[in-house]
Amino acid sequence: MLNADEVQAVIYEGLPAASEEGLRIEEVGARRARVRSPFRPSTLRPGGSISGPTMMGLADAAMYAAILGELGRVEMAVTQNLNINFLSRPAPADLIAEAVILRLGRRAAVLEVQLFSEGNDEMVAHVTGTYALPSS
Amino acid sequence: MLNADEVQAVIYEGLPAASEEGLRIEEVGARRARVRSPFRPSTLRPGGSISGPTMMGLADAAMYAAILGELGRVEMAVTQNLNINFLSRPAPADLIAEAVILRLGRRAAVLEVQLFSEGNDEMVAHVTGTYALPSS
Amino acid sequence: MLNADEVQAVIYEGLPAASEEGLRIEEVGARRARVRSPFRPSTLRPGGSISGPTMMGLADAAMYAAILGELGRVEMAVTQNLNINFLSRPAPADLIAEAVILRLGRRAAVLEVQLFSEGNDEMVAHVTGTYALPSS
Amino acid sequence: MLNADEVQAVIYEGLPAASEEGLRIEEVGARRARVRSPFRPSTLRPGGSISGPTMMGLADAAMYAAILGELGRVEMAVTQNLNINFLSRPAPADLIAEAVILRLGRRAAVLEVQLFSEGNDEMVAHVTGTYALPSS
Repeated sequence: MLNADEVQAVIYEGLPAASEEGLRIEEVGARRARVRSPFRPSTLRPGGSISGPTMMGLADAAMYAAILGELGRVEMAVTQNLNINFLSRPAPADLIAEAVILRLGRRAAVLEVQLFSEGNDEMVAHVTGTYALPSS
Repeated sequence: MLNADEVQAVIYEGLPAASEEGLRIEEVGARRARVRSPFRPSTLRPGGSISGPTMMGLADAAMYAAILGELGRVEMAVTQNLNINFLSRPAPADLIAEAVILRLGRRAAVLEVQLFSEGNDEMVAHVTGTYALPSS
Repeated sequence: MLNADEVQAVIYEGLPAASEEGLRIEEVGARRARVRSPFRPSTLRPGGSISGPTMMGLADAAMYAAILGELGRVEMAVTQNLNINFLSRPAPADLIAEAVILRLGRRAAVLEVQLFSEGNDEMVAHVTGTYALPSS
Repeated sequence: MLNADEVQAVIYEGLPAASEEGLRIEEVGARRARVRSPFRPSTLRPGGSISGPTMMGLADAAMYAAILGELGRVEMAVTQNLNINFLSRPAPADLIAEAVILRLGRRAAVLEVQLFSEGNDEMVAHVTGTYALPSS
């Protein structure tokens, strides 16, 4: 329903933090979205890996982007549940999130997100989550 | 092992974002920690509630604070898993996180966190998580 | 809306396995339920602890009992999400589950369950879950 | 390290319930396992779908099978965390679980499991979990 640029505009309007962080919606469609979080040194934590909250925020944005891409301007869709497993230490590089809608019901959507460091095909984190959808 | 001010110093050294957001470690001890996230308009999302990633970041910091308070300077403790359920819309106000260690093993700690809006005793989010502990 | 015996009858009608296992709904009310799983040697796993699925099944039944106790005969309420952290090895003894409804919305309920071995106050597992509620 | 028959023998020795339910380890290898739970009318719940605990037990067994297949006789590997999202109502038919190891560390393994009804490619449930591995 919305393309990547339109999804990015909706997210930037609604959530100034996403704009400040420079999140980029790279692809949207076919129940999927790919979102990039540009590397920022302020997100490093001891040991040199990127902080967990940075990864959780990116995963949440990628789920939201996949839903907006599928359903249009449902800005009031909200996260109900998010579960993240951290798998390997991300490199000090851009993070890429690949979200897919596993189930799209009338009232809720369940999604899966895989997170990677730019240029590395080892998954750094795996996320599942549920979004509550507004009544239409 | 560390008091609230010492825990805050460790967190600020390691994670500049926590310092920028003004996270305050209010209490630490007896396998618990209470952490405050001062209200910032940039964390609002459509509808006026505080963004999910803000709550996830606060919960993660509260778990880390409880572990540092119990074990001392284990900066390399890292989040393995975090599961959050969003319960009610937070007010545009400070967020308070109350973390408790449910189990402290040699290799991992399991924690629970309850999140509240300042001045309101209805829980806004409930979190459980696992931290991997460094080998000593 | 239903007392403990009525809840047990609804669960036994709907789920023969609960009856075979002898699950007992001990208390229901005030958004809570306590459910007992009598010890059965067939649920032991290597090392002598009770199997994970036994604990997951008990936690799920305790959530269902709390919802039936609060809302009446909503047999079509179904589990959407369940997250369990195993904390300590249960004794070869009855398991007790204490469930509480954290949030009761129109469309979904979020619950927390604590599991214990009979006669021991160390928690053996911690569960959170979401039930989807039928439209009324 | 172990083939499907050997994995099944280890699971049947350790967990009589798996044997009673007739769980079949169909394939093991390359960090994956496929496990079948034959349909049993006693697992039906109101509405005709298969009970959540049946699906959770199958998912847990599939994770264990993938680990035994990869690491050999690590009977003492135990589930630390399991998170399940129920996606669609399973048919009254065999359930199939496809488990894959996402990360294999020294101390823990993180796995993903997809559950299907026999003969239907719509996923009925999605699971992630962590197994603690015994020190070797």
